[in-house]
Amino acid sequence: MSDSIELIPGNSLLTYSPEAGRALAIKMARLSIKVTQPDATVREKLRPDYANDADMLISIAHVIAAEFATIAQANNYWR
Amino acid sequence: MSDSIELIPGNSLLTYSPEAGRALAIKMARLSIKVTQPDATVREKLRPDYANDADMLISIAHVIAAEFATIAQANNYWR
Amino acid sequence: MSDSIELIPGNSLLTYSPEAGRALAIKMARLSIKVTQPDATVREKLRPDYANDADMLISIAHVIAAEFATIAQANNYWR
Amino acid sequence: MSDSIELIPGNSLLTYSPEAGRALAIKMARLSIKVTQPDATVREKLRPDYANDADMLISIAHVIAAEFATIAQANNYWR
Amino acid sequence: MSDSIELIPGNSLLTYSPEAGRALAIKMARLSIKVTQPDATVREKLRPDYANDADMLISIAHVIAAEFATIAQANNYWR
Amino acid sequence: MSDSIELIPGNSLLTYSPEAGRALAIKMARLSIKVTQPDATVREKLRPDYANDADMLISIAHVIAAEFATIAQANNYWR
Repeated sequence: MSDSIELIPGNSLLTYSPEAGRALAIKMARLSIKVTQPDATVREKLRPDYANDADMLISIAHVIAAEFATIAQANNYWR
Repeated sequence: MSDSIELIPGNSLLTYSPEAGRALAIKMARLSIKVTQPDATVREKLRPDYANDADMLISIAHVIAAEFATIAQANNYWR
Repeated sequence: MSDSIELIPGNSLLTYSPEAGRALAIKMARLSIKVTQPDATVREKLRPDYANDADMLISIAHVIAAEFATIAQANNYWR
Repeated sequence: MSDSIELIPGNSLLTYSPEAGRALAIKMARLSIKVTQPDATVREKLRPDYANDADMLISIAHVIAAEFATIAQANNYWR
Repeated sequence: MSDSIELIPGNSLLTYSPEAGRALAIKMARLSIKVTQPDATVREKLRPDYANDADMLISIAHVIAAEFATIAQANNYWR
Repeated sequence: MSDSIELIPGNSLLTYSPEAGRALAIKMARLSIKVTQPDATVREKLRPDYANDADMLISIAHVIAAEFATIAQANNYWR
């Protein structure tokens, strides 16, 4: 399954800015969902479930923070 | 979606103090919610859900801690 | 909101001992809750919810561990 | 139990690219599930439970992020 | 509250062995619970709640892992 | 309690391979459960609870990932 779905856009953790690194973190988190549930129709159906649920929105924010920690370190924090 | 919403205010993880770094962590966590649920009306409606729920308040605190860990390291802990 | 509430007491992650660092971790976690729910009356009302719930007590302990990891590193583990 | 199930394919954290590192993170997360529930029939039965549940999909994404953080560091972020 | 409860036994993260470091991680996690719920009678009443609940036992294991990560780093992994 | 139960087999985080490190992570996670619930009969009774629950299997995978991160770093990622 993970063979046919791109997991890291551009196949690199290096980005030109923190903003771009954050966007990458969000994309990587979404691609994790996609690889586990490859059916776009199901994912679309689940969208209102989490987009209207405070608890799940917070959980998503936690995953983004975790992905971003790795990307930020890869980029030496864009210092 | 993430193209039109600013994800990291100032496009930098560097802040002049721990206090400012903490404020940035909070803002980044909130912007993660915003990028997943861009509709301000829905977010406003969800506010009492988490603001009056001890479990969700704790989850938010966990996300802030995770974001702050990255920011603190980026700033070499303001040593 | 985060402008009017102090987020990091003393505006520094540096403490003179592990014990003081741990106390700071606890305070920072509590201040995260405060910034999300600034109303003291509500927070006081929520107190018995988490103080008598094993699951939430464990979640709070997890947040303290996360905050402490950052503080300990900032202090080079008080070696 | 963990003796008879391969836990890390190739017995190495080193991969030739971020994409391959991400695929390894996903495999390692799945093998953690397998080692705890070695019965393939049960795992197959549980599949629709998590694949159609937004909350669990998010939790899986969090585990992948955690595994990937270690793999990325092992590979010096493929810099 | 945190003033009267010892948070880190011995006021040090340094231990003579991994085993002792692990015991410290467990103690620190327990003291986080104690500082949030200082009433021993309540804590004792909550004990069967988490000791007989697989989900909470797993959550406690996660907290121990988080505390231990910090202690292990403090001790340079007892290499 | 933690005095009578071995917490880290071999009292070392160093292993000869990633696979052995992963097995150690799993053992350490299980020993955290054991130290919190020392009664083997209760643990055995809880087994079907988590082994047949997708959500708990994912939580266990998260704990294994956390333990492994520490072990991998201790071993300098077996580079």
